[in-house]
Amino acid sequence: MNYEFLKKLIVPAESKIVMLIMDGLGGLPREAGGKTELETAHTPNLDALAARSALGFSSPAGTGIAVGSGPGHLAIFGFDPIQNEIGRGALEALGVDIDLRPEDVAARGNFCQVDESGILIDRRAGRLATPEAIRLAKILNTIKVEGVETLVEPIKEHRFAFVMRGEGLNPEIEDTDPLKEGVPLCAAKASSNASIHTAKLVNRYIEQARDLLKDEKAANMILLRGFDRLPSLPQYQDLFKLRAASIAVNGMYRGVSRLVGMQVLPVEGNRIEDEFSTLEEYWSQFDFFYIHIKQTDTHGEDGDFDRKVRIIEQVDSQIPRILDLHPDVILVTGDHSSPAILKSHSWHPVPAMVYSKYVREDNIAEFGERACARGSLGTLPATDFMPLLLANAGRIKKYGA
Amino acid sequence: MNYEFLKKLIVPAESKIVMLIMDGLGGLPREAGGKTELETAHTPNLDALAARSALGFSSPAGTGIAVGSGPGHLAIFGFDPIQNEIGRGALEALGVDIDLRPEDVAARGNFCQVDESGILIDRRAGRLATPEAIRLAKILNTIKVEGVETLVEPIKEHRFAFVMRGEGLNPEIEDTDPLKEGVPLCAAKASSNASIHTAKLVNRYIEQARDLLKDEKAANMILLRGFDRLPSLPQYQDLFKLRAASIAVNGMYRGVSRLVGMQVLPVEGNRIEDEFSTLEEYWSQFDFFYIHIKQTDTHGEDGDFDRKVRIIEQVDSQIPRILDLHPDVILVTGDHSSPAILKSHSWHPVPAMVYSKYVREDNIAEFGERACARGSLGTLPATDFMPLLLANAGRIKKYGA
Repeated sequence: MNYEFLKKLIVPAESKIVMLIMDGLGGLPREAGGKTELETAHTPNLDALAARSALGFSSPAGTGIAVGSGPGHLAIFGFDPIQNEIGRGALEALGVDIDLRPEDVAARGNFCQVDESGILIDRRAGRLATPEAIRLAKILNTIKVEGVETLVEPIKEHRFAFVMRGEGLNPEIEDTDPLKEGVPLCAAKASSNASIHTAKLVNRYIEQARDLLKDEKAANMILLRGFDRLPSLPQYQDLFKLRAASIAVNGMYRGVSRLVGMQVLPVEGNRIEDEFSTLEEYWSQFDFFYIHIKQTDTHGEDGDFDRKVRIIEQVDSQIPRILDLHPDVILVTGDHSSPAILKSHSWHPVPAMVYSKYVREDNIAEFGERACARGSLGTLPATDFMPLLLANAGRIKKYGA
Repeated sequence: MNYEFLKKLIVPAESKIVMLIMDGLGGLPREAGGKTELETAHTPNLDALAARSALGFSSPAGTGIAVGSGPGHLAIFGFDPIQNEIGRGALEALGVDIDLRPEDVAARGNFCQVDESGILIDRRAGRLATPEAIRLAKILNTIKVEGVETLVEPIKEHRFAFVMRGEGLNPEIEDTDPLKEGVPLCAAKASSNASIHTAKLVNRYIEQARDLLKDEKAANMILLRGFDRLPSLPQYQDLFKLRAASIAVNGMYRGVSRLVGMQVLPVEGNRIEDEFSTLEEYWSQFDFFYIHIKQTDTHGEDGDFDRKVRIIEQVDSQIPRILDLHPDVILVTGDHSSPAILKSHSWHPVPAMVYSKYVREDNIAEFGERACARGSLGTLPATDFMPLLLANAGRIKKYGA
């Protein structure tokens, strides 16, 4: 998407857009000639909507590329996920569902072992057992550094995500990890003037961590590396003139949607229906709603074909609640595919349908991979969907005379 | 293809990929409403494979562009054929099927006529008859220049391809062709320090050519122009972690495949079956096999619809030999279209199918242009196929979290 070009054409309107993202929606048949999860699911409401929609596929980051949910969401939100790479520290934080904010500084952390003179003996603290890491993370989370909030979240074994939140932080800080054993740890060193204050705060944190962990046997110290923050992106309000809201239960999706300027709405409860209650409650206050369903991906990654089918059916049962609000434009798709037979994210394009009063209907009364292959949208780069939704919403004026 | 991006995601795997290229595969019906060459051919094996594949088209260099086999192959091998232009000298050498190597220096040559004082009288030696050129080329091919091998290959009339092979050669040499008559020929002049040695060797060659041709009536001298060599491209081993092999009878295809780091395998005989015997023989030693079938293009260019059909049928009969090896991924397509009714390469997208255990099958049991138009791949840039094959082979890891 060429933002500068598009931004000049955006006009305000009264129309409302719903973007329903079933995470990992795309699938594969269990056996050759069979049906995918979406094709197997009994989805009368999605099928009826398909009959009034244009069908096709969304390609998150190009042919053959399987994406994580971070880049997958950036793409469907309209931003090139390769040009706007989310750095390792921020990615690690999003990956463990920390509700990361654009101003936060994030890093990847290790529990490690040093000797009495501070020389690094084991970068991984003997690949610390995960329950131990959880216990130690709780200890670290008692640390107070004046003027900022800090959080560590264990990942697996010796690894954890580290986040510092506060005003005026800057991530241009060198790793404290010397990358080899037998030498002292490095201090967090500012690599620019802008980060001198942040580096000081990080060092204060590390000193407290040393004190708190000093009597631990294996993991008596921490290492931090890959300091960064979320990429800075144009905001929906400014770029698209949209008051945009995000309805998601998991921190990662709340974080990524906040990144593009969506207001993250509260969801009471964590059932699928609860998200649609939030949609109804806030309907009058926003122009654009992103609704995220996590469990389609969870069961795809678990390899549980039948449960993924059932989640799709549950979402289908909520479609009338969307329609009752009379949105002008609806997109139903996923951020990537997660076929249960692969137990992972995959490169397969994601089934997608766009409904509006002005869409050129394909007259295909079915929402599924083979149906979408017959649709008129073809396989669109995911970044094309926002312009398409905005056009259908009467929010893009003619280019040229 | 963004190499830097893709390279970071490549992971090793045990899987095997077969890329079967029928040169000039795409066709057109003889009469309106009729069938193309591929649709006419009786291809039970390709049709059965299609039923288990994703179908679509490959577009070598964008809509409306007919490509030569050089750019067509660069594209299907994954490299932008417009950014990686093959220079005129190298193209001429590939065009007459010289098995050009990346280190070779190539040029376009003319037989020409000079007077006794060396003034150029006729740049084309009276458009020398081709049989005469063939006789003179044999004479030139007796020339020995110390430290290098040289080869000329007649093209048509006064034109020939010139190749110098050896270590440390550099093509930055100015034309010896003054481009007008009534003036002396230019010496081969180095246009950079790196090419001084090569220019000396070329001048030694030209002196010997002058001596050998001095008693000829019309064509008593040669001109060389457009010195260059093959573009330098990333190698499959380094870029894709693939041990890649090439099975092709003609020099041009051996040359282009060597350019991307494929090992060119010997083929005993020049029947289509012989190439598949090579595939079987070397199956255990490589991860990736490119197999090139020339005759589909030859008969397309000859305008011989029926013979092109029969070649496709012959290739079809060999498909079980591929399947018996149990490759993980198969691509069947062409480097460009060559409809018999056009007697030339054309701009039409090329029918393509991708088979793997993890492909989203289209359930279309036919390999042909109209069948491919219903396929889910749509029309992909030819450069997208390598990422797609690698993904299906489990050789690309997820991007981001």
